[in-house]
Amino acid sequence: MKEIVTLDHGSGGLRTSELIEQVLLPAYGNAALNELGDGAVLSDLGGSPVFSTDSFVVTPWRFPGGNIGKLAVCGTINDVCMAGGEPKYLSLALILEEGFAMDDLREIVASAAETAKACGVQIVTGDTKVVERGHVDGIYINTAGIGVLRAHGLGRSAIRPGDAVLVSGSVGCHGAAVMMARGDIPCEGTLLSDCCPLHALSKAALDAGGVRILRDPTRGGVATTLNEFVEHGPFCIELEEDAIPVDPAVAAACDLLGLDPLYAACEGRMLAVVDPTCVDAVLSALHALPGGEGAVQIGRVTTARPGQVMLNAAFGSRILSKLTGAQLPRIC
Amino acid sequence: MKEIVTLDHGSGGLRTSELIEQVLLPAYGNAALNELGDGAVLSDLGGSPVFSTDSFVVTPWRFPGGNIGKLAVCGTINDVCMAGGEPKYLSLALILEEGFAMDDLREIVASAAETAKACGVQIVTGDTKVVERGHVDGIYINTAGIGVLRAHGLGRSAIRPGDAVLVSGSVGCHGAAVMMARGDIPCEGTLLSDCCPLHALSKAALDAGGVRILRDPTRGGVATTLNEFVEHGPFCIELEEDAIPVDPAVAAACDLLGLDPLYAACEGRMLAVVDPTCVDAVLSALHALPGGEGAVQIGRVTTARPGQVMLNAAFGSRILSKLTGAQLPRIC
Repeated sequence: MKEIVTLDHGSGGLRTSELIEQVLLPAYGNAALNELGDGAVLSDLGGSPVFSTDSFVVTPWRFPGGNIGKLAVCGTINDVCMAGGEPKYLSLALILEEGFAMDDLREIVASAAETAKACGVQIVTGDTKVVERGHVDGIYINTAGIGVLRAHGLGRSAIRPGDAVLVSGSVGCHGAAVMMARGDIPCEGTLLSDCCPLHALSKAALDAGGVRILRDPTRGGVATTLNEFVEHGPFCIELEEDAIPVDPAVAAACDLLGLDPLYAACEGRMLAVVDPTCVDAVLSALHALPGGEGAVQIGRVTTARPGQVMLNAAFGSRILSKLTGAQLPRIC
Repeated sequence: MKEIVTLDHGSGGLRTSELIEQVLLPAYGNAALNELGDGAVLSDLGGSPVFSTDSFVVTPWRFPGGNIGKLAVCGTINDVCMAGGEPKYLSLALILEEGFAMDDLREIVASAAETAKACGVQIVTGDTKVVERGHVDGIYINTAGIGVLRAHGLGRSAIRPGDAVLVSGSVGCHGAAVMMARGDIPCEGTLLSDCCPLHALSKAALDAGGVRILRDPTRGGVATTLNEFVEHGPFCIELEEDAIPVDPAVAAACDLLGLDPLYAACEGRMLAVVDPTCVDAVLSALHALPGGEGAVQIGRVTTARPGQVMLNAAFGSRILSKLTGAQLPRIC
């Protein structure tokens, strides 16, 4: 008989203990977690904490290039990295649907554990709730992350005219891959989510110097994230359409659905605004790392249209506003 | 027309920004959050971090004595406190159902903000996801918390024979109040959840000295939590049934449903195992504080039945095992 999650697994009693001891601890096990206290007691950080959280409700939970476990770990690690932190510790909280297959949970937990380990991050505390059949499509995950600040002064206020806008690779792959996994796209292909941790790329960029701000363009995509950099401020970002890397499979998928890759989510790409004198150093550092081979400058900061993002194309320019509809619900 | 949550509010685009700026920031606003970065950069903790998380799926989301917002803040603050930490910062992540009333969200957010403020805790980072109608019964919340360790060496391994077992007040109120709110109990009454933060009570107990371990008996109740203190170890906890405070309304509600108050969840009670020479000091400290007036010794640590919890009653003793079924799903 297929082993499944039952409401008992969320009771806080005996079956919850079994789930923790048989499924979660073997995957995540470390000294802080193994104490099984109400909270984990951690080593001194030796610096300012960076703290972030995200909940993940992606459907389907498994997609080409990853699953919700990998995504939940990458997502929060990346947010800590983008805020200038070196990620150290994660919490991981599961909301499971009664009847979810225990083997699927094991697959998800294994992906989460593997991803965290690859980044030198420990999953030190967690929680498991189970809700009745018909809720949550199997599984939702929340992660929160603690890092230690290694780059001071990052942020919108550091941006200056003349700065370069870089992206670490092609855009919109995660959104397109999830669409494909939903069956929304009638083609087969090699389209994979870009879901991956950005700890190495962000460290390399910061070490190279001149970074003003970092951000991973998740929901709302590149266009929305760049708007957040300049909105209500005195500067403009001008993008060169020809310079923006879009995978042909992503372009085709978006074309079929009438979507714009500039608004499609990435889950393993990094946008960086960089001092113009440091562009070569940052790009060289990124090119040397897996996942950064395609890093490229896509635009620059100007004063042309304060507070706005412009896309310069062969036949003129247009304004790229923030995403105004729910282009794709449940993409992460 | 009633203002409701739409899928657009979870898009990461314009409507998400509006929700953050119009509903969340006015309630939580603080310097770290207002930056709206991917993560919050915090001040140095000046000690070891204590880190905890919980997701909350309670149904209904509003119950006598609180709502899911207050509960989500209390729950994680209490976990940080029980691990020996002074709570400092919270993350708060919302998963909302399309169609949820914006006024209900405001009520929940206000409760969360008020509770955090009363504890001197800042909500510094967050996330908002929206899922389609028919999922999540309106709202789920995850919180994660960071505190700074103020009590070293708490834990199971500090427990010794002769230690006293204390509880800060009557047991099972939260579980009984949520049952009543579900309409499972056919009586009206003054039954209120005990949902409240334990930051002052836990600090008072630790300052008084002699504390071996602290825990709030949430899911699984007092019986399950005390089992976790002694299971697989050399010691036993013996409880005196007559000493355990149970509110008459809770006793009546549990009686009607065939439940045992010792397994019903508390969300604002503290269990403490304490050096026997410190019992009077700890109880005096608790009695002086709101919510601690009913603190009392309910048992002691012995070697009678290693690894087990015994309940001594007028007509003999019985073993109290861990909760073995899902007594009450979605209680927190």
